[in-house]
Amino acid sequence: MKNIPLLLALVGAATTAHAQSSVTLTGTVDIGVNYAKGSEASRTQMMSGGNATSKLVFRGQEDLGGGMYAMFWLESGLNADSGIFQPTNTNNQPSGATPAATGLTFNRRSIVGIGGNWGAIHLGREWSPTYVMYTSKFDPFALGAGLALNYSGGINPNQLRASNAIAYLSPTVLGGFSLNAQHWRGENLSGTATAGDGTGGGARISYDNGPFSAAAVLLRTKYAAGDAIYRVVGTAYDFGFARFSFNLNKDQQGTLKQDGWMAGVTVPVGETQLRASYSSIKSNQTGEPEGKKLAVGAVYNLSKRTALYTTVASIRNSGGASFTFTGATTAVNRSATAIDLGLRHNF
Amino acid sequence: MKNIPLLLALVGAATTAHAQSSVTLTGTVDIGVNYAKGSEASRTQMMSGGNATSKLVFRGQEDLGGGMYAMFWLESGLNADSGIFQPTNTNNQPSGATPAATGLTFNRRSIVGIGGNWGAIHLGREWSPTYVMYTSKFDPFALGAGLALNYSGGINPNQLRASNAIAYLSPTVLGGFSLNAQHWRGENLSGTATAGDGTGGGARISYDNGPFSAAAVLLRTKYAAGDAIYRVVGTAYDFGFARFSFNLNKDQQGTLKQDGWMAGVTVPVGETQLRASYSSIKSNQTGEPEGKKLAVGAVYNLSKRTALYTTVASIRNSGGASFTFTGATTAVNRSATAIDLGLRHNF
Amino acid sequence: MKNIPLLLALVGAATTAHAQSSVTLTGTVDIGVNYAKGSEASRTQMMSGGNATSKLVFRGQEDLGGGMYAMFWLESGLNADSGIFQPTNTNNQPSGATPAATGLTFNRRSIVGIGGNWGAIHLGREWSPTYVMYTSKFDPFALGAGLALNYSGGINPNQLRASNAIAYLSPTVLGGFSLNAQHWRGENLSGTATAGDGTGGGARISYDNGPFSAAAVLLRTKYAAGDAIYRVVGTAYDFGFARFSFNLNKDQQGTLKQDGWMAGVTVPVGETQLRASYSSIKSNQTGEPEGKKLAVGAVYNLSKRTALYTTVASIRNSGGASFTFTGATTAVNRSATAIDLGLRHNF
Repeated sequence: MKNIPLLLALVGAATTAHAQSSVTLTGTVDIGVNYAKGSEASRTQMMSGGNATSKLVFRGQEDLGGGMYAMFWLESGLNADSGIFQPTNTNNQPSGATPAATGLTFNRRSIVGIGGNWGAIHLGREWSPTYVMYTSKFDPFALGAGLALNYSGGINPNQLRASNAIAYLSPTVLGGFSLNAQHWRGENLSGTATAGDGTGGGARISYDNGPFSAAAVLLRTKYAAGDAIYRVVGTAYDFGFARFSFNLNKDQQGTLKQDGWMAGVTVPVGETQLRASYSSIKSNQTGEPEGKKLAVGAVYNLSKRTALYTTVASIRNSGGASFTFTGATTAVNRSATAIDLGLRHNF
Repeated sequence: MKNIPLLLALVGAATTAHAQSSVTLTGTVDIGVNYAKGSEASRTQMMSGGNATSKLVFRGQEDLGGGMYAMFWLESGLNADSGIFQPTNTNNQPSGATPAATGLTFNRRSIVGIGGNWGAIHLGREWSPTYVMYTSKFDPFALGAGLALNYSGGINPNQLRASNAIAYLSPTVLGGFSLNAQHWRGENLSGTATAGDGTGGGARISYDNGPFSAAAVLLRTKYAAGDAIYRVVGTAYDFGFARFSFNLNKDQQGTLKQDGWMAGVTVPVGETQLRASYSSIKSNQTGEPEGKKLAVGAVYNLSKRTALYTTVASIRNSGGASFTFTGATTAVNRSATAIDLGLRHNF
Repeated sequence: MKNIPLLLALVGAATTAHAQSSVTLTGTVDIGVNYAKGSEASRTQMMSGGNATSKLVFRGQEDLGGGMYAMFWLESGLNADSGIFQPTNTNNQPSGATPAATGLTFNRRSIVGIGGNWGAIHLGREWSPTYVMYTSKFDPFALGAGLALNYSGGINPNQLRASNAIAYLSPTVLGGFSLNAQHWRGENLSGTATAGDGTGGGARISYDNGPFSAAAVLLRTKYAAGDAIYRVVGTAYDFGFARFSFNLNKDQQGTLKQDGWMAGVTVPVGETQLRASYSSIKSNQTGEPEGKKLAVGAVYNLSKRTALYTTVASIRNSGGASFTFTGATTAVNRSATAIDLGLRHNF
């Protein structure tokens, strides 16, 4: 090819006058080698997104004057080891899952919004109020072999995101408080017992002030078979030499209940970030199956955008649980281990 | 579209010298709340594209010298309320429809072209000659709850676009006349009775001069079961205080015939655009089923790129018809109503 | 997320300061008319990629200092005549093929890499070592009606690309030598006879010095039913008035063996490039079926980025072979012909 590198830029006589017209094209490619060992089957595999989800993002913001703005954010999740994209969910119910091996969808976020000093309203497929509780704000790993076990217990499709949503995001008030309140629709035909399935909402109250962060979320999605409910709290404090974080969740669907928690720490050492977490998930099923995971790892920053990373993690099962890592199969009450080694590049 | 074009330009010492290498990345995110009420079932839902289709567009043009240019246009339709993309059609027949819940395809346009003072030739998936008849040039709404009923009667996949097409677009001559002539292929294997299905073409003659526009189209796609034929005429006049438009269509496939018409008006009031239309569609099936729709609405421009909009529309059925709105179910000869409230942002 | 947002920077006074943050957005739209005539069925059709594959590419490179760099390359293949995208393969086996009529995937390349004066390491879906042997470096056509027959004999999905791969690309040493060595994983569950299927690798040694190029590849992917093996050598010499190229391949899967070769020439005449090739493929199946193809064509460059092209090609079959062109059906030992006429535009 004879292409010459291109940058997306404004063109015209008065370029700077249109600065608000910009589209930001950004993303991540993160691929690594993973070895997952279970008591019954193991696998060496390439994996996408061990440190940050591989993705493609189109977003932008327009100044409307008077302190108001319009914005959009379209974000697509990529399995970069084979070039396929991740599925979305169209109706906030298991039936709305799109095929797993699919082309590009904006599964990670697809919104248009308007905002001002009163806050912002976002419409579309949005991060649900629980989303941030499972990100690196409260979980040092959040992805890959180190992902905390108390996330893995997702009961319904809205633990991270919801389609057909309307969200209100407040400004920060009272020295650090903010509110995120949402409602989403399942959009089933009326007149059946499950017509309300997938319709729900939730709210998160956050407090962020310098090194200290805390948040509490309540989220509920209707199901005729039993509403899916998440209650999550999290907190973090950055002492400079180390940042400690903790979150705790109580999930429920009908009579099924899960309790989980995670405690984590990250320690910066020059260009390296050391990190560790311990997490637990336990359900009220027969035998009270429980999984516990210990993860330790390091991220070495080659630049602000590029890093090498490695994580080692181990899962212990009891009470009939068989939690494991992708690619490994583990018998009940047996252990599993995994190691990640990868390269992450933000663009 | 009123997009402020963003251009991908070369970066470096000689940026302006390579201006012709630009790629334009543009699009729309339009999401709203819709309530659709039928006689049998109703639904409150988020909808994409009530004012302008949510989309992602990659396009560009190269100056070849001597008045000649090359161009491409790749445009993808997005259901932004859940992040999925719209399907395309590969063979101009119902059998060529790609799955409805799918990844990004360039379903809205996928062409390469060459042009000069003699006109232009476009190859690929192109707007068929009828396309413009159903846009805001002749229908004040063209989308959402207000979409005229005489479009809804589409008989075959080529009412708006055709794949495997070659199009000739004339320059404007004689003070306002232009021609759009196309041919497309169904690309079935030869040797069967339906080998020619999906192959067709059409032509549109347009006249545009200041406030006055008029166009007439004839379009025909072969089907062994009976050719699909569209005959559409439209006209519009902008008096300044109001723009009036009208279109009329006679569609046919084999023995099935449909007649429709639409009359519309848009009135600018400051930053607000008021709009209304009345449309009708009637077929020759038993009972001569007929639907009539009245739609009124307003678009409030927050900027050249961003607008709030609302539309209220009502459908009346007779003769055994059961036309309705997406999300509602209506019994024969009963009514349906819908209301849109949304936010549209072009980028 | 720690993304440094950006790229789409404004072009202006400080442009060059952000040069390393750039994302390159580039691609091709190539559409033409093709007539394929077989002994049993023929077809006139629009085709994508007769001269260069229609595609969309997102790529970039970051300077890490000390001669090191990070890079990514995401490339998607498009069937531009209808707007659908090409499938990828997730596990390097036929079972990993994604649906043929699908949305955008990065089927052509999806990698992140790191490099320096010691060479480069690429992770993800990468061109396999054999890839370059079938490009225009050694085959004057490489695509469309003129594509050499000895490529058409692909036995497994890794002839051009492999997912879940790790590749080492050496720097050029000893005045022109370079090495490309790769390993890829099939990623099946362990414990079955076919657990190793799709795991493989290969290496290519290339020599490039001014007008002379040569390369040799050995590639092997495990299959319980018989490993898929490619052995390919190629060479080319550019005399200025003409460039001659030749490649030869011996493919094998279990007891099935195929031998092929191609001899080609390109001759520049002003803005026109004339090209011709003769190719052969023969297998050890009953009757030793063999196909031979002669192709001649011309590419007329309208600019550095845009060209018109035409190709005429003919296939002769013997020994029970029935090689043909897309869209045509040919009986055993009969002939087929095809002609391409198209427009290619790089952006």
